Amino acid sequence: MSKDYKKMWSDLEMNLEAHDGLLAVLSDAYKNIYVSQENRPEGMKYFDFVISEVHGLRIEEILEAKKGGRKVIGTFCVYVPEELILAVDGVCIGLCAGAEVGSDEAEKYIPRNTCALIKAFMGFKLAGLCPYVQTTDLIVGETTCDGKKKAYEIFDEITHGKMYVMEIPNKKGEDGIALWRNEVKRFAYKLENLTGKKLSLEKLQNASKIVKERRRDLRRLSLLRSFDPVPISGLDALLINQVSFYDDPVRFTTKLSELCDELDERIKQGTGVAEKGTPRMLISGSPMAIPNWKLHAVIEGSGAVVVGEESCVGERNFGAALDDGFSSIEEGLQMIADRYMNIHCACFTPNDERMRDIEDMAKRLKADGVIHYAIQFCTPYMVEAFKAKNIVEKVGIPFLRIETDYSMEDMGQLKTRIEAFLEMIGKGVKA
Amino acid sequence: MSKDYKKMWSDLEMNLEAHDGLLAVLSDAYKNIYVSQENRPEGMKYFDFVISEVHGLRIEEILEAKKGGRKVIGTFCVYVPEELILAVDGVCIGLCAGAEVGSDEAEKYIPRNTCALIKAFMGFKLAGLCPYVQTTDLIVGETTCDGKKKAYEIFDEITHGKMYVMEIPNKKGEDGIALWRNEVKRFAYKLENLTGKKLSLEKLQNASKIVKERRRDLRRLSLLRSFDPVPISGLDALLINQVSFYDDPVRFTTKLSELCDELDERIKQGTGVAEKGTPRMLISGSPMAIPNWKLHAVIEGSGAVVVGEESCVGERNFGAALDDGFSSIEEGLQMIADRYMNIHCACFTPNDERMRDIEDMAKRLKADGVIHYAIQFCTPYMVEAFKAKNIVEKVGIPFLRIETDYSMEDMGQLKTRIEAFLEMIGKGVKA
Repeated sequence: MSKDYKKMWSDLEMNLEAHDGLLAVLSDAYKNIYVSQENRPEGMKYFDFVISEVHGLRIEEILEAKKGGRKVIGTFCVYVPEELILAVDGVCIGLCAGAEVGSDEAEKYIPRNTCALIKAFMGFKLAGLCPYVQTTDLIVGETTCDGKKKAYEIFDEITHGKMYVMEIPNKKGEDGIALWRNEVKRFAYKLENLTGKKLSLEKLQNASKIVKERRRDLRRLSLLRSFDPVPISGLDALLINQVSFYDDPVRFTTKLSELCDELDERIKQGTGVAEKGTPRMLISGSPMAIPNWKLHAVIEGSGAVVVGEESCVGERNFGAALDDGFSSIEEGLQMIADRYMNIHCACFTPNDERMRDIEDMAKRLKADGVIHYAIQFCTPYMVEAFKAKNIVEKVGIPFLRIETDYSMEDMGQLKTRIEAFLEMIGKGVKA
Repeated sequence: MSKDYKKMWSDLEMNLEAHDGLLAVLSDAYKNIYVSQENRPEGMKYFDFVISEVHGLRIEEILEAKKGGRKVIGTFCVYVPEELILAVDGVCIGLCAGAEVGSDEAEKYIPRNTCALIKAFMGFKLAGLCPYVQTTDLIVGETTCDGKKKAYEIFDEITHGKMYVMEIPNKKGEDGIALWRNEVKRFAYKLENLTGKKLSLEKLQNASKIVKERRRDLRRLSLLRSFDPVPISGLDALLINQVSFYDDPVRFTTKLSELCDELDERIKQGTGVAEKGTPRMLISGSPMAIPNWKLHAVIEGSGAVVVGEESCVGERNFGAALDDGFSSIEEGLQMIADRYMNIHCACFTPNDERMRDIEDMAKRLKADGVIHYAIQFCTPYMVEAFKAKNIVEKVGIPFLRIETDYSMEDMGQLKTRIEAFLEMIGKGVKA
């Protein structure tokens, strides 16, 4: 951290002592998991810096923005239309949900059998450990799963009425799409009220361009991972995707673009982070919020590389492109709404498009195996694993199903299972 | 069982040997839990008979109806509009989902961490133990929870395309209501196609009357349980509610009405199933499908009485009345749709109406305590327990939270917890 942020955190009513402990643990984990990697692209230095300042400089920036009259909107899900938030000059921030923090406190409100991500966003708030949630003027939830849908009701009490929940339909039929389009309109209206700023066509176009370009470059990164040797580790690619939910979007895109240029160069020169022929894994399933690096760390620590994430922190975040050729606010809102309906989340029934995504990604990224990742108690993805297995077997590559939480208790077991999976694939796993 | 149904079950492609075992277990359980009760109303003899023939005579009737050209529609939820099914001369049947059956088979398709009810409907089918599902022409699901929503996709494969899933919105806003009204219209159209019979105003009115009268009498039963001494046990009332999903609706209402007359008489004479002053428990939470009598058995075996079920197998099934003063099919479909939106399921956010129901029932039934029942992994009810606790404490009576499945493994623990709860209430528990 570049300087002392104690006063800032104190003003944000955080638990300073516990927060110091958390930062120390994270810093150690980052050194062990990230900095220890060999042959990383130079461009990762920016993302290393962002992480080192994730609770520091970035929060300072956000507080500066607030002083300048901008509102801060916290989110937990890729369904919240960021275009609208930026168009009213808001700051859009993913809230802390990726570490086992404040579980005991959280379990006073929600059941033990709740997924780690939900427990974490409750826990971070209750334990006073998420500076982002402290800066928010509004927190936007969505009805993507039972756990979040119902936990948001309680989180609204805990945050003294900051929650606003958008309804995602259960099916993508005509009525569901109409409902969602209206939800997007209502959200625009809510944001106008919150910020006191009116949407204009120009602002909506500009905001759409910013988000579109970030998604375009994340897609570029995804495509670059299809080469063998792979020019960037799965851990680093995951980190970039995680940072995309926190960082200033314009700066992020500039830095990502520079990194992708470097990866282009690596590909031309045949340079990779692992030898050509290293077993290539596609991850598919639940989102991995920062600092949830567990599965990637185990896989890449076992001599394979992760080449893609069919996940909300990954392809589901940037896969669908926005048709931004709109010429009125009304049309823009509809095109934005429709873009989000193109995300293939397990909250929908049916969700066959996701199966096609898994098939396409496995082929495009030349995956040697697919590891289906579900956070424990994440019912939509846990159940959909059955269909995912069928499609992966149709592609003709092995499939492994992992259910885990954020604790380190099952690391040994996880490592054993993944090593056995890689041995079965038999492409020369490191000793 | 009045006769040998082996040939019928064999024709239904059931697993005869395993089914014999199941019936033997159920028959024993019924004797121990039900027949052993003291001072039961005479009118329960009919329901005892129905249970003794639940896989026999009732299936024979349904097969007769099928021979007569009627279609059989299986359901799992109180959101499926029975009025429409009856209006096209269909038979509406709740499918087997209340016992730990075929779990090993089910777990090949769905995760272990799935609620017992979902695992059971999968297991009953896979193990060849539910004669009802074998008779169905259509199985109607709904999007009320993640587990069912996603499991139905797999159940559709298992049943070779018999599933039809109705979308329940996540909120009761204007768009959600519009979506649901259209779902009801689409369902009517689906039923017309399935049966080859057109809806008519007269048929819709008649069907609505049949269902309305059944609900009216179930409500009458509920009201009769508010007296002290309570004229009927919770176990018997639960059974009646369970049977309401299987039995011929007209015959059921006649028999229930006779039973209620008898209970009226008991109340006049001050006769009850337990002494005046016996601790009165309200159950609130997840549905209890037949033969899930576990919680009631433990409570009433511990010297208390269950006086109400704020549950889908209970008040949520009959609490909302249909406004059936409609004079066109269009208007009828809308009124029917709107009646179902008046069910206060935890699938909605927010669901404050359920909190009011709990408060109202606790007061009306003079409950001394509320026991919140959630099937393990039933996220919507597990999370809503937090708000339920708050409202019950506001009413000023004790609250106990139970999470359990269909196994008997936790019976000792359950009994200990419930006895401790009753002792705390301190209204003189039996030794």
